[in-house]
Amino acid sequence: MQKTLEYIESHQDQHIRDLSEFLAIPSVSTDAEYKADVERCAAWLSEHLAQCGLENVQQIPSGGHPAVYADWLHAGSNAPTVLFYGHYDVQPVDPLDLWTSPPFEPIVKDGKIYARGAVDDKGQVMLQIKALEACLRSDGRLPVNVKLLIEGEEEIGSEHLEDILREHRERLACDVILISDTAMFGPAMPSLVYGLRGLTYMEITVHGPNRDLHSGSFGGAVDNPANALCAMIAQLKDAFGRIQIPGFYDSVRSVSETERRELQRLPWDEQGYADSLGLAHTNGEFGYSTLERLWARPTLDVNGIWGGFTGEGAKTVLPAKASAKISMRLVPDQDCHDIAEKFEQYIRTIAPPTVRVEVQSLHGGNPALTEIDSVGMRAAMRALELAYGRKPFLQREGGSIPIVLVLQEILAADTVLMGFGLNTENTHSPNEHFSLANYKSGSIATAHFYHELLNLSAGSA
Amino acid sequence: MQKTLEYIESHQDQHIRDLSEFLAIPSVSTDAEYKADVERCAAWLSEHLAQCGLENVQQIPSGGHPAVYADWLHAGSNAPTVLFYGHYDVQPVDPLDLWTSPPFEPIVKDGKIYARGAVDDKGQVMLQIKALEACLRSDGRLPVNVKLLIEGEEEIGSEHLEDILREHRERLACDVILISDTAMFGPAMPSLVYGLRGLTYMEITVHGPNRDLHSGSFGGAVDNPANALCAMIAQLKDAFGRIQIPGFYDSVRSVSETERRELQRLPWDEQGYADSLGLAHTNGEFGYSTLERLWARPTLDVNGIWGGFTGEGAKTVLPAKASAKISMRLVPDQDCHDIAEKFEQYIRTIAPPTVRVEVQSLHGGNPALTEIDSVGMRAAMRALELAYGRKPFLQREGGSIPIVLVLQEILAADTVLMGFGLNTENTHSPNEHFSLANYKSGSIATAHFYHELLNLSAGSA
Repeated sequence: MQKTLEYIESHQDQHIRDLSEFLAIPSVSTDAEYKADVERCAAWLSEHLAQCGLENVQQIPSGGHPAVYADWLHAGSNAPTVLFYGHYDVQPVDPLDLWTSPPFEPIVKDGKIYARGAVDDKGQVMLQIKALEACLRSDGRLPVNVKLLIEGEEEIGSEHLEDILREHRERLACDVILISDTAMFGPAMPSLVYGLRGLTYMEITVHGPNRDLHSGSFGGAVDNPANALCAMIAQLKDAFGRIQIPGFYDSVRSVSETERRELQRLPWDEQGYADSLGLAHTNGEFGYSTLERLWARPTLDVNGIWGGFTGEGAKTVLPAKASAKISMRLVPDQDCHDIAEKFEQYIRTIAPPTVRVEVQSLHGGNPALTEIDSVGMRAAMRALELAYGRKPFLQREGGSIPIVLVLQEILAADTVLMGFGLNTENTHSPNEHFSLANYKSGSIATAHFYHELLNLSAGSA
Repeated sequence: MQKTLEYIESHQDQHIRDLSEFLAIPSVSTDAEYKADVERCAAWLSEHLAQCGLENVQQIPSGGHPAVYADWLHAGSNAPTVLFYGHYDVQPVDPLDLWTSPPFEPIVKDGKIYARGAVDDKGQVMLQIKALEACLRSDGRLPVNVKLLIEGEEEIGSEHLEDILREHRERLACDVILISDTAMFGPAMPSLVYGLRGLTYMEITVHGPNRDLHSGSFGGAVDNPANALCAMIAQLKDAFGRIQIPGFYDSVRSVSETERRELQRLPWDEQGYADSLGLAHTNGEFGYSTLERLWARPTLDVNGIWGGFTGEGAKTVLPAKASAKISMRLVPDQDCHDIAEKFEQYIRTIAPPTVRVEVQSLHGGNPALTEIDSVGMRAAMRALELAYGRKPFLQREGGSIPIVLVLQEILAADTVLMGFGLNTENTHSPNEHFSLANYKSGSIATAHFYHELLNLSAGSA
């Protein structure tokens, strides 16, 4: 293990250069315009995996963007097998004008690397690859069998991953699923995530008159689709932040007293949190703490809204239509399809007869809770303690990795969510970045993880 | 008069070519990007006025876009003096993708000319100029003294026109103010407008967190500015279409029984009107007919709304801010500044403490009612009857020409709103167009107007 740690230490500059190359490729999966770049990114990743000593590197085609597979399977049939899952696609960059440096020209500043995808998820994928490279180069082998599956459609709901998993079930068979796509509770606070929220993402378009109208000549005679859209959105929540969709909370698992106590034990600076967001106060569903609202309660947010004249000046138009993207974060045991239906039904109920409303579901994923005393989780806890010198925190996460449930179901293996991001690193926002300290510690923790997993499995075998 | 009518008849092709040249210049006043084109348009117009035989052509500089002045003053001191007011600036063209031909490449189709500004207001300015050209070329003179003032800032609230009017009061002195910027009640239904609505145009921006956030990692902890904006907009009107701003209706002059009867006498096809807009029904303030809502009642409309991610796909962002443009149409005796203040006060009242709200007034103008039995109006009624062969309709108009009140106040002259547009000609919308039949009839009516005005004035003198 010593040689491996020395290798990681002595190769940091090279590892950062490798990450920069990876980040420089604009693999934006949501936007058809970037299709060629996404393909280029998959090709670059495949080549890099081979260079790092991984075997059977292959691009697995899907209806959309390809997934990249690689493995190293010489640890023996008694050694456990780990499947690492990550994604090489990234979110769009807009609003571009808020970036202080071009999103696809990575730069290192104050111990952080800035670029779209730095922390979500290219940086966390690369630290895993670097851990494997370090073991292979220093020991010539890995303690366990490792498979990697790195997809290109996570940011668009992993459309085709389920098909891939079912088609290649045998080949992807494993004992533990390892994912690095979550955030630590805070700087230097190693964390393991045991709960994730789900997601239902909808788009509404409200249609009024058959063309944009002059608001003077026609104002007063026809319903305004933008006003109507706002009126509908206003009916989605009440003054206490409770979502008004009938049946929305039916299958929400309430926070147990035990979990409430656990949450309260976590170090949490409410005012510092608000300050970091430039807010006087946090705000959310009445009757719950901020951490409960973030981790254990569902939410509803407008992600985007547009209609009419949005340029400079004062155009007196009565718009023909207006649209909004609205998403809901889900918690166990809500079902993303059930919520999508309930959302659409409610919208149809509150839609005024004066407009025509279109509702479509853009994507969804179910919430997940994972076993916290599995072999994989215990190995991860030891590994993080060795890498960071302190016991890791057990936490939930407000975001979604819809694929976790699918991985668990299809591969029937324990899941370990060992992430190295920070919530202050602007995921999905301008100036996304990743701490280089965590980039290195992440590689170290991962190397430890493989060794600890072998020990614990041997013990339990 | 006969020679003048023959001239107009025989020069239509040339007159259409002149209008096309005028329309081809993208004089969009709301957008700084088009500043040079607006200046080019003023220069072209000045040159054209001189070519048509008008004198003392001059560009009057303002803080913003210049106004164009010209006159012909040889009818003698006993003859009345008419000031024609119009504007050469146009609205923006978006949404551009809905235009079936480029907005600044005028084309003639089915007896209509298509281009931005075709009816509002370049076409109506040009038919006036062509009437003057026809009189001057055929008779070598005009029956009355004529001054023209054609501004370049009407679509941005005529910011500097008031200063220009005050500074050049003597030079612009006149007996009648003639304006062609209104719509006829319907095809082949010559109309004179005696009432205009006013306008208060506001912009709101709601600020939340100091950056766009991941809606998973932060959703539930902070108020969403887009949701907050919608909730506020929803509180601007009740379910009966009544505006909820305290004091909003205080100075609204109610519709008199006489006017109600007049309105009911106008030919009005409610279902045909709805059909033409692709709607099953009209909709507006409870308790008023569609014409009352359009002409005699105030309104509130969202003209534009934007915030968060509006591109393709499903970006899970919790936006840092959201904005809306909201305008109100006013009726006598509402005051646009008073309403702007009441709007802002109400917004401040309903703004949640969880967000920061910015409110700005983009522009405004007061409503107007004009004398219907002035010499100018009577001359216009005769002129329209001669040109169209039927008595004109007296009507109000839902739109605003904020400058009418200022012109009346500063120049202390009667106003005549003799417009030749149609409400079906897509003013402010894609595929704006103008009927070439009305383009010609408008020139004929205008020529008649000058002769009738001389006769009536002589009579009354």
